[in-house]
This record gives sequence, C-alpha cells and structure tokens, in this order.
Amino acid sequence: MERKILRTECPDSKGLIAQITSICFQHQLNIIRNTEYVDPVSGQFYMRTELEGQFDDDRLLSELDFILPAGSERSLHSATKRKRVVILVTKESHCLGDILMKVFDGSLQLDIVAVLGNYNDLAGLAERFSIPFHHICHQQLSRQAHEQAMLELIEHYAPDYLVLAKFMRILTPDFVGRFPERIINIHHSFLPAFIGAKPYQQAFERGVKIIGATAHFVNNELDEGPIIEQMVSRVDHNYSAQDMAKAGRDVEKAALSRALQLIQEDRVFVHGNKTVLL
Amino acid sequence: MERKILRTECPDSKGLIAQITSICFQHQLNIIRNTEYVDPVSGQFYMRTELEGQFDDDRLLSELDFILPAGSERSLHSATKRKRVVILVTKESHCLGDILMKVFDGSLQLDIVAVLGNYNDLAGLAERFSIPFHHICHQQLSRQAHEQAMLELIEHYAPDYLVLAKFMRILTPDFVGRFPERIINIHHSFLPAFIGAKPYQQAFERGVKIIGATAHFVNNELDEGPIIEQMVSRVDHNYSAQDMAKAGRDVEKAALSRALQLIQEDRVFVHGNKTVLL
Amino acid sequence: MERKILRTECPDSKGLIAQITSICFQHQLNIIRNTEYVDPVSGQFYMRTELEGQFDDDRLLSELDFILPAGSERSLHSATKRKRVVILVTKESHCLGDILMKVFDGSLQLDIVAVLGNYNDLAGLAERFSIPFHHICHQQLSRQAHEQAMLELIEHYAPDYLVLAKFMRILTPDFVGRFPERIINIHHSFLPAFIGAKPYQQAFERGVKIIGATAHFVNNELDEGPIIEQMVSRVDHNYSAQDMAKAGRDVEKAALSRALQLIQEDRVFVHGNKTVLL
Amino acid sequence: MERKILRTECPDSKGLIAQITSICFQHQLNIIRNTEYVDPVSGQFYMRTELEGQFDDDRLLSELDFILPAGSERSLHSATKRKRVVILVTKESHCLGDILMKVFDGSLQLDIVAVLGNYNDLAGLAERFSIPFHHICHQQLSRQAHEQAMLELIEHYAPDYLVLAKFMRILTPDFVGRFPERIINIHHSFLPAFIGAKPYQQAFERGVKIIGATAHFVNNELDEGPIIEQMVSRVDHNYSAQDMAKAGRDVEKAALSRALQLIQEDRVFVHGNKTVLL
Repeated sequence: MERKILRTECPDSKGLIAQITSICFQHQLNIIRNTEYVDPVSGQFYMRTELEGQFDDDRLLSELDFILPAGSERSLHSATKRKRVVILVTKESHCLGDILMKVFDGSLQLDIVAVLGNYNDLAGLAERFSIPFHHICHQQLSRQAHEQAMLELIEHYAPDYLVLAKFMRILTPDFVGRFPERIINIHHSFLPAFIGAKPYQQAFERGVKIIGATAHFVNNELDEGPIIEQMVSRVDHNYSAQDMAKAGRDVEKAALSRALQLIQEDRVFVHGNKTVLL
Repeated sequence: MERKILRTECPDSKGLIAQITSICFQHQLNIIRNTEYVDPVSGQFYMRTELEGQFDDDRLLSELDFILPAGSERSLHSATKRKRVVILVTKESHCLGDILMKVFDGSLQLDIVAVLGNYNDLAGLAERFSIPFHHICHQQLSRQAHEQAMLELIEHYAPDYLVLAKFMRILTPDFVGRFPERIINIHHSFLPAFIGAKPYQQAFERGVKIIGATAHFVNNELDEGPIIEQMVSRVDHNYSAQDMAKAGRDVEKAALSRALQLIQEDRVFVHGNKTVLL
Repeated sequence: MERKILRTECPDSKGLIAQITSICFQHQLNIIRNTEYVDPVSGQFYMRTELEGQFDDDRLLSELDFILPAGSERSLHSATKRKRVVILVTKESHCLGDILMKVFDGSLQLDIVAVLGNYNDLAGLAERFSIPFHHICHQQLSRQAHEQAMLELIEHYAPDYLVLAKFMRILTPDFVGRFPERIINIHHSFLPAFIGAKPYQQAFERGVKIIGATAHFVNNELDEGPIIEQMVSRVDHNYSAQDMAKAGRDVEKAALSRALQLIQEDRVFVHGNKTVLL
Repeated sequence: MERKILRTECPDSKGLIAQITSICFQHQLNIIRNTEYVDPVSGQFYMRTELEGQFDDDRLLSELDFILPAGSERSLHSATKRKRVVILVTKESHCLGDILMKVFDGSLQLDIVAVLGNYNDLAGLAERFSIPFHHICHQQLSRQAHEQAMLELIEHYAPDYLVLAKFMRILTPDFVGRFPERIINIHHSFLPAFIGAKPYQQAFERGVKIIGATAHFVNNELDEGPIIEQMVSRVDHNYSAQDMAKAGRDVEKAALSRALQLIQEDRVFVHGNKTVLL
C-alpha cells in the first residue's frame, strides 16, 4: 500500500470530479482526501487527491490524459518522498536554523541537500547538522559570474526547490527564469506593504501596530511573486526598528517553514500571480 | 439556475466520491465546491457538495439512495433559504445584539423568528429590530411547567434551530431530547476548561493568560456536547474577573456567530461527540 | 473618591517620574496605574497616571506646571466622563451598528451625540437607538458648502471627537485642520498596504493571505495619519474580493471600536506621525 | 553606563512610586522604563524599573530598605547578565532544539550551562551546540536515588533556573521544594484543560477546535503552578491525536521560549498562584 498525491489542473467542465475519481476507483485506489477549487473568473480547475493503494502510474496518468481537456496538467507524487531543497543564505541564521531543526526533529520532511552562502558565516551551523555548505563569495565576481558559479553547484545537487532563507541578493531574470515556480523567498514584511529595502525601518517610521512576513515564489518582479503564506505579529510604540526586526524573525521563520510544508505536501498550485492551497 | 447543498453521511467505501459526483454530473449539475472527510477510526464518510443548476430533488435523492449503503443519510438544502432560529436569552445583551446586528447588516443570513427570554430585560432590544419577544418567566413555575410553556411557543414558530445566546438556565434532558443537534449554546469558557458555573471567576483564580468561549451543540451532558467553534483572547494580570468577563464578551459573540454561519451554510456534521466542519 | 487620568507630555529629563508622582503623593492621591514612555530618538516623555482620591485640579496642575519644562502639555481627565462623539457615515452599517450596540450593552463608554450621513440609509438604525440622525446630502452642493453644513451641525453638538465609520468621502484640509487629532477614521486595509480606493479589490488581485483594517487619526495626507490600532484576518484563495470585503467588516469593526476604547480611556498620545498607547 | 533592573515587591502604600523613583533620581539614574502593578485584592505592590547610569548597588538598596515597609523584597539585576539554566529533557527534541537555536542566533540571551537527560537520545543535539549533556538514567534507580544524582549534578552547575523541556517525569515534593519559583515547565495543554497524562489524546477525544500549551512554574500540585505564558493553535476534524501533538510542538516551543525570555528580562513576579508580568 502506497500513498500518492494526484494533482490536476485544467479548464473547468461539468463532470470533472466524477470522471477523475471514477478512474481512481477503477484503479481500486482509496481516496483519503480530495480538495478542489474552481476559479470563478478564469474557470480554471485545480484538484489535489490523496490516494492510497497499488499504483500503476503510467496507466493511471494516460487514462487521465484521455479524459482531460487539452492544456491540462496532471502529476502523481509520492506522499512520502522528500523534496530536495538547496537553501541559499547570507549571514542571518534564524531561518536556516529553524529549517534545520525542524528537519532534525521530524516536523518538516524535506531533504536539505546543500546550503549555499554568499558569505561564510553559516558554514558552522550547516555543518552541525551534517549538511554540505558551499561558500560562493559574490565579491570580486560579476553578477553573471557569481550566478553562474551558483548554478553549477545547484545543478550538481538537482534540487526540486531553491529556498532563499534570508538570501540578501537580488537574482537576475536569467537565473530566476531557470527555476519557474521553484524558488521560494521569505520577505520580511507583510507584502505589499514595505516592498524593497529595510522593511522594518519603513514599518517603524510608519508607526504600524502589526508587522508581518511573506513567503512567496520568486518571479522577475521584485517582491511581486505569488504569495504562499503570510504571518503577522503585534508590535507597539516600545519597539525600535531593531526590536521589530528581532520580533520579525519569529514570523519569518514561521511563514517560511509553513510554506515549505505546503510545498512538501504538494498543496501549492500557482494561478496567475496567486497561489491556490489545496 | 439554483444553488443547493448536498450533504452525505455514510460508511466509507471505495468509489463513493466517484459515484455521487457521477450522479450529479448526469443531472447536469455543476459542482461549485466539494469537501469530504473520512474518519480514519470509525470509517464514516462525510461529504458536502455545493451544486448549481436545475434540480430534480426527488430523482436526485432516489438515485443517490440506490448507490448509498444502508444507514446513509443524505439531504439537499437550498443555499439561499435562511434557517429559522428562535433565540433564548436571559439578561445579557451582547450575543443577542451581535446576532441581530449581523442579520441586519447582511453578515448573517439567518431568519430570527422570535426571541424568548426568562427575563424581560431584552424585550426592547428585540423590538428595535422588529423581532417578536416573548417573556416566559421561570419564577413561580416548576421547571417542567416553564419548559412546557417554552415548548409550546417554540412549536408555534417551527424553528430549525434554537440558539442559547447567554440563556442562563439548564435545560432538562426531556427538553433537550426534543431537539437533537438543533440546540446551539455559547459557553463562556474554553471548554473543557472551567466547566460549570462562573468560568471567568475560575479563570481569574487560576491566573490563565488566555480566555476563551465555546459554541457547541447541547446534549444531556452539561457543557459536553459537540464543539462547533472555539475562540480565545489574551488577558493578563491586570484583568479582574469582571474585566475577563467583559473581554470574554467579544469572543463569545464571535464564536457564536461563526457557529451560526457554519450552521446556515450546512457545513456542520456531527460525528459522535465531535463536529466535522466541511 | 474620584478617579482621574493625568496625562503628561514633555521633553525627558532625569527625575520626571519622581517629581510628578511626588506631587500626586502630596495631594494624597493614590496611583492606580502609571505608564510612561520615553522616545529614545526624540527624547520626548509621555506619561499616563491613573489617580484616585480627592482632586484639587487647579492646584495640582499649577504645581505640575512649576516643575515641568517649557513646552510641556499636561491635562487631567475624569475617568468616568464619557467622550462626546459625532459619527459620520455613508451607507454601510456594520461599524455604526457595532458602536451603537457596544454603547448599548456597556462595552464602550462613549456618548454618541449624533450620527451624520451623506446618505439617508442609516437613519433608521440610529433612530432605533434613539440617536439623532442628520442627513446632509452632498449632492447638488459644492464640497465647501457640504462641509460647511456639516461643520455647523457638528459645532452644535460640540463633540470631543469625530468618528468616520465608513464615511466614504475625502475631507478637505480646511475641514480636517479644524479637528487636529480629533478625527478617527477606519480604513479598510492593513496600512500602508493598499492605500486609496478599493483596497479589498487590490488585496484580492495581489493574492494576499491576510487582510486587515487600520484605525487612524486623520490628517491631510490621505490614509497617512497616526495609526491607533490595526487588526487582521486570514483569507485564502476561496475568497472573492466581495468575500474579503465581508470578512473585512469584522476586523474593521474590531479595530475601530478598540481605537475608540483607547481614546475613551485617554491612552492615546500622538508623537509625530505615530501613536504612543499608554 | 550600566543598565540594571530594580525589582520591588511590598504591601502597597501611597507615595511608593514617588519615594522609589526619587531615590533613583538622587542616584542620578535614568529611568528607561517603569512598570508597576498593585493587586486590588491583596494590596500587594509590584514594580520593575529599568535604570541606566552608574550604580552604587549597596547604597541604593539600603536607601530603599529605609523607606520600604517590613516584608518588602527588592533586588537589583544586571540587564545584560545571562541567567544560568540547566535544561532537563527526556526524548523529544523540539523544545531543547528551539532553545539551543534561539540562544545560538541571539534571540534568547540565556546561558545554557548543561542539559540533563533521563534518556540519552538528545546527547548528540546538545553536543552539536557544545553544551555538556549528562545522561542520568532513571532505570534501576529508586526515585530518590535518581533525583539525588540529578541534584548533585545540578548543584555543580549552580543554575539560576531549571527548565523542564519535555522532561516526562514527575518530580518529588522534596526536589521541587529545593527550587522555589526556579523550575519552569512546559505542559502540552492549555491548562487547566487536560491536566495530567496524554493531553493531546484527551483533546482529540473531546473534539476541541483549539489546542494550547502552558509554561508555568512547578510547585507541588501537578500542573498547578503559576502560569507564565500560554499559547494556542487552531486544529480541526482532520487532526488525529498525533497531528495535534505535532501541531502542538510549535506552541510548546513558542510558549516556553517566551516564558524564558520574560524570566531573562526579570519581568516575572509570583503572586500567590499567579504571575504578574511587568
């Protein structure tokens, strides 16, 4: 008995759920949980089906292809196989540390295959958890050369996702374009408030009563990719910009690790510039 | 084009979703949203299907009966028809006031057919919103006689649900037994903490840092019926028992009105002593 | 025995708390609660002192003036006297209804002296609670003439504060300038995200996972005045812009009524474009 | 320039704040923040004063003794000196891991002097952070002998506090009595709900919609000591008891580390069976 996730995405039409679940039934698969969403504006259909049984993947998928309209996407994922991630960092340790510890204690079922830093500061932390750390210094390299060096390393590890865990450099469109819907960033504000640099300083100056963090896919618009998760925390007049940054760490960690868990469970669908979480 | 909610509850078996949604498809009904749950311990299957189209209720239900196992429950509800509720109150106005205002401004799509108080204090409030108020005083009546008087009045209004909006009397098993899964109470604590009388006083004495409220179905175990919704609010050492009670009003209102909205939308299934919210 | 709130605001210097509380002590006043804040950047000192006893207001204040530096502000407020507010509305009822109900049930100790609408829609609601409603239609009037008509009416009621409870018109600098730090608005977004028109539509299009509301003082920068309170609520991909607006009502109500409670309790100090809540 | 925390606890009387802050003023100390609380029932006065300047500790304290009533407690603590803690664990890593990581990244300014386990499972985790780990197995030892062995080790480290980070053994009154208000436990429920064993199983069976965790001082009533912090998290019908336990880890970690931060900042006062957090 295996457990797999079937993800389906296609233009909506009547009877889709019946047709897809009928095929699952013919395969003697048990549906543990089924969640679907139809976007009322675009009419796009999204479904995540958690299945249990004996799988004949090729036959199942080809039978689905037979009934699904043109332009459909469908895929079958093992529920237990860990996604491979490469984590990119700069100097701040809290997001990396949180992910490492959650993987360590089993809260997060990812496979961290490598950590890559443009500074060397977090080498010791990664090594404590026996994760290879690579220092690819951006200094004395052109942006292209630096990204090229990163790409070669990343390619070597063949990750499913790149996680920017407080990686403080902006990636070029060329780099981003190689990993569509596969780069996850944690931005230290409640987007779209405080886009860009120094969001805690901006939040402090505006006198907000709540700060936040946003985990999102990276595309080529700065801080504009599809939002996966957001979390917030109350602050008050006693908080300096530094205090806000410190309090913000907890929400950054929480939002990022929640986003990674959704990714690991194959729950995140991208719909234009938004996400559908099933 | 109508919109209806199909609720199904039965022992789980492979292919149920496929069979049920196929029948909907044959009826040319569009599935707006479908949510289901299978209890892994009991193997009970629950499904809520939001449908749109032209309905032939009798034929749809009888075709479902044909495929559903013995002991199944299924029902079809108009998505726009308002549930009829009678609200029972004592003296405190905040829960009644909140429901009245939410119905007034359209946030809650209930039909409040009457308010019934064992004191007269809230007559004016109900009347401001043109809702009939009935004062059935419990004094100088035996418990049986008082409940009998209430029952006659309630029967007259033929409500779908009774809502105990800070009704401070305990109902007899006989009364409760007449409305299985149809009486909703708001208890002023985060159950099962502080069961029974004066929960805020108990919370104050224990020095808790969070207080709560619980909306639940009433059965014949005091404060033990299936929980529909719970909400909480932070307190601190500055709060007296009275301050806690005052802060608690907001969570009481919020939990009760959220429970009523779930009820109105046909989302609440009872599974033993728990609820499944689909 | 009376209870009063002493508010002090001045440049910080060593010994201020000692000097102020010593004067209170000499007046045989008991300090129920004392909260203070010194802004580390500007060095401005803020203190709220809750006092109990027999008050000789003039002597207390003049003794304070003797020790406080030039440019200080200090004031003494009865803890039990209700602030007089005029509420400005357009068509949406939820914020007005919430305030009316909270005053009715005693949760909010304000004195609503009048409701003023640029449409007539909410007249009936105000009248249910025996509050005078005035319809000053903006149509067929110049902006100046409309504001002039409002001003005359407002003057008549001599309110301490104006509350914009979903008043959907922008006030002129001239109007705003007459009520410095005395106009409170509820903005239907988590400022500074989604400044301006149709914030829920903007939030929907951006695909945020949390929406919010902001209660703030009105100054002459649109949506830029000092923030008093912010609250948030989770949303997901199932929410249309309309659903977000509906869910947003609850946070709007909650943020506005919390801000009004802070105002009523003399807790809000304005410090540049921020608030200090003591 | 040093920064210190003055903690005062005594029966209330008029003029206390004035007298205490006057002495601070005479010492040319600047008050960064002052927070006080008077319990209205017992009339006990609590104050935390954050001071900056040049300290003559002995003279300051003896001058305070001169004005404070008999039975007063006052103490002066360096704001930068880290509290020494020994952490007791069993097998679960999440609370220990969270504290280790927060100390590592600077979020928590404690000095973890040792970790003590009744199992050996977490030795490797402590050692990754270069913290001495001691395995004192309880098997084949009487309860007294086991506690005696722990006591000897603890004494060696002279900690300010013991932290029970999922230490799954009940301590004897004799052991507890040696560390009054110095043992902090994390209980995996929202106390007083689900006192005792297997709280998540109990929560699952009751069908609650919110689970919680409680950080509290340990006294000799099981799960009954003064509560320092509580946190909660929403769950639903999809959560098994195991899922609740897993979701509960995050609140356990958060509540415990928040409690430790309050302890580190000298904010926690014990008042009967409650805490006052200043």
